[in-house]
Amino acid sequence: MSVLTASGTSIDLGPAAALSCRECGQRTALGPVFACTSCFGPLEIAYDLPVSDPEGLRRRIEAGPANIWRYAPLLPVPADVADKPNMNPGWTPLVKADRLAAELGVTGGLYVKDDSANPTHSFKDRVVANAVEAARAFGFTTLSCSSTGNLAGAVGAAAARAGLRSCVFIPHDLEQGKVVMAAVYGGDLVAIEGTYDDVNRFCSELIGDPAGEGWGFVNVNLRPYYAEGSKTLAYEICEQLGWRLPDQLVIPIASGSQLTKIDKGLKELIATGLVEDRPYRIFGAQAEGCSPVSQAFKAGHDVVRPVRPDTIAKSLAIGNPADGPYVLDIARRTGGAVEDVTDEQVVDSIKLLARTEGIFAETAGGVTLGVTRKLIASGALDPSLTTVVLNTGDGLKTLDAVAPTSGPSAVIRPNLDSFREAGLA
Amino acid sequence: MSVLTASGTSIDLGPAAALSCRECGQRTALGPVFACTSCFGPLEIAYDLPVSDPEGLRRRIEAGPANIWRYAPLLPVPADVADKPNMNPGWTPLVKADRLAAELGVTGGLYVKDDSANPTHSFKDRVVANAVEAARAFGFTTLSCSSTGNLAGAVGAAAARAGLRSCVFIPHDLEQGKVVMAAVYGGDLVAIEGTYDDVNRFCSELIGDPAGEGWGFVNVNLRPYYAEGSKTLAYEICEQLGWRLPDQLVIPIASGSQLTKIDKGLKELIATGLVEDRPYRIFGAQAEGCSPVSQAFKAGHDVVRPVRPDTIAKSLAIGNPADGPYVLDIARRTGGAVEDVTDEQVVDSIKLLARTEGIFAETAGGVTLGVTRKLIASGALDPSLTTVVLNTGDGLKTLDAVAPTSGPSAVIRPNLDSFREAGLA
Repeated sequence: MSVLTASGTSIDLGPAAALSCRECGQRTALGPVFACTSCFGPLEIAYDLPVSDPEGLRRRIEAGPANIWRYAPLLPVPADVADKPNMNPGWTPLVKADRLAAELGVTGGLYVKDDSANPTHSFKDRVVANAVEAARAFGFTTLSCSSTGNLAGAVGAAAARAGLRSCVFIPHDLEQGKVVMAAVYGGDLVAIEGTYDDVNRFCSELIGDPAGEGWGFVNVNLRPYYAEGSKTLAYEICEQLGWRLPDQLVIPIASGSQLTKIDKGLKELIATGLVEDRPYRIFGAQAEGCSPVSQAFKAGHDVVRPVRPDTIAKSLAIGNPADGPYVLDIARRTGGAVEDVTDEQVVDSIKLLARTEGIFAETAGGVTLGVTRKLIASGALDPSLTTVVLNTGDGLKTLDAVAPTSGPSAVIRPNLDSFREAGLA
Repeated sequence: MSVLTASGTSIDLGPAAALSCRECGQRTALGPVFACTSCFGPLEIAYDLPVSDPEGLRRRIEAGPANIWRYAPLLPVPADVADKPNMNPGWTPLVKADRLAAELGVTGGLYVKDDSANPTHSFKDRVVANAVEAARAFGFTTLSCSSTGNLAGAVGAAAARAGLRSCVFIPHDLEQGKVVMAAVYGGDLVAIEGTYDDVNRFCSELIGDPAGEGWGFVNVNLRPYYAEGSKTLAYEICEQLGWRLPDQLVIPIASGSQLTKIDKGLKELIATGLVEDRPYRIFGAQAEGCSPVSQAFKAGHDVVRPVRPDTIAKSLAIGNPADGPYVLDIARRTGGAVEDVTDEQVVDSIKLLARTEGIFAETAGGVTLGVTRKLIASGALDPSLTTVVLNTGDGLKTLDAVAPTSGPSAVIRPNLDSFREAGLA
């Protein structure tokens, strides 16, 4: 479906009809903008959703490709999106975690949505794939972002495959795996002496400067399109459960965008008739060393006071989370909660997930599982209900977290005597 | 389908009917054995393949899960395999690599089969998943292996999910990513002071010793079952091409088993009528620092003289490849070749693949692409034909190969002046 942009050109981003302000509801034409001109609230996509024929829509989705483009009718992308060179992320495993459930005493069904299976091994491939389509539609030839690491790799890879230039910005102190992965795709990688919040502020400056002209910053001027990619997590979880809403979801919080968009995705599934409307609870997970949303939740505040992050969960180390207030709202509205865990609990949970389910999560996954355990212990999370825990990234990218305690049980010479001496026989 | 084992118990490994010696053809009952009692040749699975209804088989496969178990009718696994806890590998992307093709001058269609998308990010998940089913059938409770790294992670993860104990053996000098990944799943990891060939010899000793009793060594006493997992690469490639054989395949060589089983898989697709019978050429790829098969091919020999490996492509560093003679036979029979490249060419090809297609391959993938380029240059590989190049592992596991030349373009302070000084605007 083609619509007119503010500049009068015609673009096709599928069912995306306009941008709408999350705060005041004012609508504006599709374009590379992210803030409402009336109230400065965040813009998100308004759709003409297909609501008339749920069975037909369901069949169309099920006949689609084994990636996020099966949901093209619900995303801001053209109908022929799957024919263009892109990373085709998504349709990652929803692992029924029976051995983990047994350890945690969860009886209602415990699932891990394992997004480390994406092309660059984090959920960021989902959002970037959507941003690439917007970049193409708006004629950008350079793809950019501020990143705590995972996004940098996802942007580098997606730009390479799409034949776009990339220039990504990261804090200078990231894990080696994330730095190398961000650089290997051949785009420009700029390390900034400062925190992620400094990097983010710098990108907002750059976007208003001639130096940044013509650049598509996936998480700034393309943010409304980009953020929609997280909805696909909600779609996939429900489809993989047999077109059914889970009772409880535990989701990590960095900017909070993923959690809010998963909620949006669940509501769209209800609105289009793809799932039956029933209550669900959303829980947010942070690391203690960067827990502004958790602190606000526990204090009963509606605003989130920025913090200076200090945690091994660097992909969640956003001290000033843009969607923090919306997260608070969703957790409270659905009967969920926001909780945090220590770095020690993060490491312990990474190893628990690996030992019980063979899933090697990055620190963000350790945060989410750690919070799940804490919420079960406190009674906030009901173990008799169907629960989905998100793993958003890959342990190979945060080796330092587990390396000190994950080495060989023994080093031996290649003979049976040496093996027996090691006491492993 | 249940069949009797040599010990008289009944097991169900689907269409697997017996073991058959690759050298003399002698058949023996299914069991945890790997060498022919008559001639010591390697045993492989003999099947009752479904040959009568290709259309029905094709529909059954297409309606199956998006993992290797869609091919259960062609694998040594029970029909209900997908219901048991396992890693569900496979159905990895076959990426149409148009940007890479343009750089290499390939006009007939160039594809990268990207097996870094598997659960532990290498093709080893395919073979281990098959070995796990055999281990269950034969009642083993400990899963073991000798490994150059990727297999260790795959075994650790698969054992964790299946609830089996694991004890894996690796050379002491592997990449950190592979060591941590092998250890994190909580099984025993034993580092051996020696090369992979030393580790392999030790495991053969251990299997005959009381200390190894009741252990399923995936690549020793479960090897016939394990090796079949590689056939799924052939099945997927052809199905993803629209049930069509490619003209040319370029496959890395470690033990040579993957290449020989892909050839077996292609022949089974022809035998069952799933694809049309037409010629295909198979090319093998090695690193110059461990190129015994390539040397034999070029010298016109039928036997492979063992070497002491010295290459950054550690996952291919097997100096005494068990299936070397079969690789030579297949390359010659199909009109293919075996070639090798330097470590420098490996690194350069990793970066070329990342820059053009957004795929970050481990060193083995660099070997395969490097050899592809060399074969195009020499005229051995025809650029006007459909060509599939395998990437069998993930760049995150061999960071050291590219880290020295893959860092930030610039380190700046978070302001526009500092950005402009860096010359990237």
